[in-house]
Amino acid sequence: MDDLSPRHGGSVFAGLVGASQVLGLVSVVLTGVWMGHYRGGFAWDGSAHEFNLHPLCMVLGLIFLHGDAILVYRVFCNEAKKHVKLLHGFIHLLALIISIVGVVAVFDFHRAAKIPDMYSLHSWCGMATLVFFCLQWVLGLLFFLFPVASSWLRATYLPIHVFCGLTLLVMAIGTSLLGITEKLLFSITDAYSLFAPEGVLANMLGILLLLYGVLLVYLITREEYRRPPNPEEESLSVHFKNLTEGGVPPTP
Amino acid sequence: MDDLSPRHGGSVFAGLVGASQVLGLVSVVLTGVWMGHYRGGFAWDGSAHEFNLHPLCMVLGLIFLHGDAILVYRVFCNEAKKHVKLLHGFIHLLALIISIVGVVAVFDFHRAAKIPDMYSLHSWCGMATLVFFCLQWVLGLLFFLFPVASSWLRATYLPIHVFCGLTLLVMAIGTSLLGITEKLLFSITDAYSLFAPEGVLANMLGILLLLYGVLLVYLITREEYRRPPNPEEESLSVHFKNLTEGGVPPTP
Repeated sequence: MDDLSPRHGGSVFAGLVGASQVLGLVSVVLTGVWMGHYRGGFAWDGSAHEFNLHPLCMVLGLIFLHGDAILVYRVFCNEAKKHVKLLHGFIHLLALIISIVGVVAVFDFHRAAKIPDMYSLHSWCGMATLVFFCLQWVLGLLFFLFPVASSWLRATYLPIHVFCGLTLLVMAIGTSLLGITEKLLFSITDAYSLFAPEGVLANMLGILLLLYGVLLVYLITREEYRRPPNPEEESLSVHFKNLTEGGVPPTP
Repeated sequence: MDDLSPRHGGSVFAGLVGASQVLGLVSVVLTGVWMGHYRGGFAWDGSAHEFNLHPLCMVLGLIFLHGDAILVYRVFCNEAKKHVKLLHGFIHLLALIISIVGVVAVFDFHRAAKIPDMYSLHSWCGMATLVFFCLQWVLGLLFFLFPVASSWLRATYLPIHVFCGLTLLVMAIGTSLLGITEKLLFSITDAYSLFAPEGVLANMLGILLLLYGVLLVYLITREEYRRPPNPEEESLSVHFKNLTEGGVPPTP
């Protein structure tokens, strides 16, 4: 399998990783432009300007940083596993904090504007994503950074952790697309159907987020881009062969 | 790997497949109830009743049948591969026809009601999903049912076919959630935030579709549920080992 590692198909791998970063960064910038230019900018005062922090924080935290936290296992596949784990956990923590700020912003805005909470499909999907994201982070910490679980339990949990991580990334992207649709229908109801520039920009943002998700999932699930096995790490950590026989990427 | 096949973990596998079918069928029924009971029923007359066929056809075709067409490779993993391929292609064709009827219904309704086409994120994502679904079906037919391509080309295309199939299923589900949000905001704008029964029912439909997608992707990507290798089939078809070394499910 080593001959198919990123080192051998390096240029394609590097190109795809680069493309994912461009897609992710442009998505964050477009969200900022949408909220900054078309929706009046940002503030923390309970107004619509506070709401504007919500999309920006969610796209930055729950999509871009979340995706990159997963991607570090492919990009730094020759670094010490322990360091990559720490980086993975740290970027996730950053993503979690930024996401929570984003959620507080929308609840704060709702309270000030007397808008009910948690009635829309966007809010149901978003809350489910955030709650499971927190759970996933805590379980990951317990299982892999402070290994209180047995090797067997860690090996059993690893494929579930990987599957749930990718599922949560896809859910975050789906939820953001729901949020884009909601925001446009609330803000530019009639102009949206006339292809108003704000609507086109927000639709394009949705498509870019979709492409970011597809590329991320592709990079993570392709077997040839996974971390190559390291016997020293294996003897210290979860047994690699069990995992590859289970057919899941060997790194959380 | 044989000792982990569905035959050995049969009860869990059967339970998960059963749960996916319940989720899929309940989703189709709920869509019918939503459109039939809350939105006035169905007709083919350019009215809003014609629009009502759109969600029903898309959930039935592009989600439920699409998912089940993929699932046949896991459920009938001991049947002759040729028969399973035919079933896979046939259910996909059925899904495609029903989806096209659903798309024609909404365009027809838009024309009669003088509503612009293709301005929303839902329509962009939906059209992309349908176009790539058609392309995927035609390429699958050419590569795997009428194998005009070489073995090498088929082996190279197979993991892409599998990845694209699952991506399109996830895109179809995401698009349907966007459609649910759009429809609710157009139809019950104010009552939605007051937790009107129609809104809660449609939100629940969205969550069921999400769970159907998660379960389907889990069943397809779990290595132990894949079709067991069959040397006779392998000698006639794509070489199995190349595929498993590529880390993708070995059946399209």
